[in-house]
Amino acid sequence: MYKSPSNNNELDHLISLLGKIPGLGPRSARRAALGLIKKKDALMRPLANALADVAENVHPCAICGNLDVENPCHICTSTKRDRSLICVIEDVSDLWALERAGSYRGLYHIIGGTLSALDGVGPEDLNISGLVERASDPDLKEIIIATNATVDGQTTAHYITEQLKPFDVTVSRLAHGVPIGGELDYLDDGTLTTALNSRRPF
Amino acid sequence: MYKSPSNNNELDHLISLLGKIPGLGPRSARRAALGLIKKKDALMRPLANALADVAENVHPCAICGNLDVENPCHICTSTKRDRSLICVIEDVSDLWALERAGSYRGLYHIIGGTLSALDGVGPEDLNISGLVERASDPDLKEIIIATNATVDGQTTAHYITEQLKPFDVTVSRLAHGVPIGGELDYLDDGTLTTALNSRRPF
Repeated sequence: MYKSPSNNNELDHLISLLGKIPGLGPRSARRAALGLIKKKDALMRPLANALADVAENVHPCAICGNLDVENPCHICTSTKRDRSLICVIEDVSDLWALERAGSYRGLYHIIGGTLSALDGVGPEDLNISGLVERASDPDLKEIIIATNATVDGQTTAHYITEQLKPFDVTVSRLAHGVPIGGELDYLDDGTLTTALNSRRPF
Repeated sequence: MYKSPSNNNELDHLISLLGKIPGLGPRSARRAALGLIKKKDALMRPLANALADVAENVHPCAICGNLDVENPCHICTSTKRDRSLICVIEDVSDLWALERAGSYRGLYHIIGGTLSALDGVGPEDLNISGLVERASDPDLKEIIIATNATVDGQTTAHYITEQLKPFDVTVSRLAHGVPIGGELDYLDDGTLTTALNSRRPF
């Protein structure tokens, strides 16, 4: 039987909501609630305001799916980005990862997940139609498919490639191989085999 | 160099605040922010309201230190609790743990931490004076010291015992031994030694 941790409705409600945050479970939610109450002015009230603020003002971009206060987002409207390149990614976190790396200056397209027969996710559940629309843009030269290197991610990449065949646009994917700083001994067989087969002259 | 994860002030601010919650780091804060945005109405807005509500209405009880919307708290004012017993604990989470166990029906006293020479925590930083005041209550028969079984917790327990010596009240502490469901093979030497020395007849 689940017992109310604090016998206090306000606190119990907060703890149950905190426990639904990805990364926090019931026990860490209790710890988080106590930690927040100890820092009411430095953390708890600012966090309440920031949550309400983001819920109100941050929306997905109608073109690429990026989260921003503007719509279209600052990447889609930027004059400094290379508009001949679109990088297709699963989620906003992948966009953040690529932006942190800082080496990509093109546009993005977030499809919002992967095809998955097990989870019942079909092409109509992902934003693939929007990508196909963007593919007819005459300025566009290349679409880089950067879905994750998982089975579902690769399936999705193949499906998208098929959809993009009618268009006059290069479709490429990220290179697979040994991660920078990676030790061979710790790599799985699949990565090692791919790295060997894709070897390049010095 | 720390790079802004989203190039978006509102979101970055939220992520930096989420990262300060005990149990969440920078990476899990980004994941939490995305998870929250995906559930704006089911989770994000209710969480913002719950945080503001608890920050406004939940306060430490002036007698025992428990967190409640009432002051004194519902345990201190309850007529169903045994007012001859006070259990001394370090933190509110310990009170919740004892209430979940459901076998204790006395009152509580939260001292708010442990004495610690390393962290510079002295008796004046803990709510020990409040406990000494409560010890003179003629209804009180026993004080159970339930600080954690750590070095600092035990030091604090000894200090409190000293302070309570002038009063006509029994001072006891929780039993140490083998946890229920525990296997001897996995227990540390200290616990095993204590369990052996404190053995009891069947």
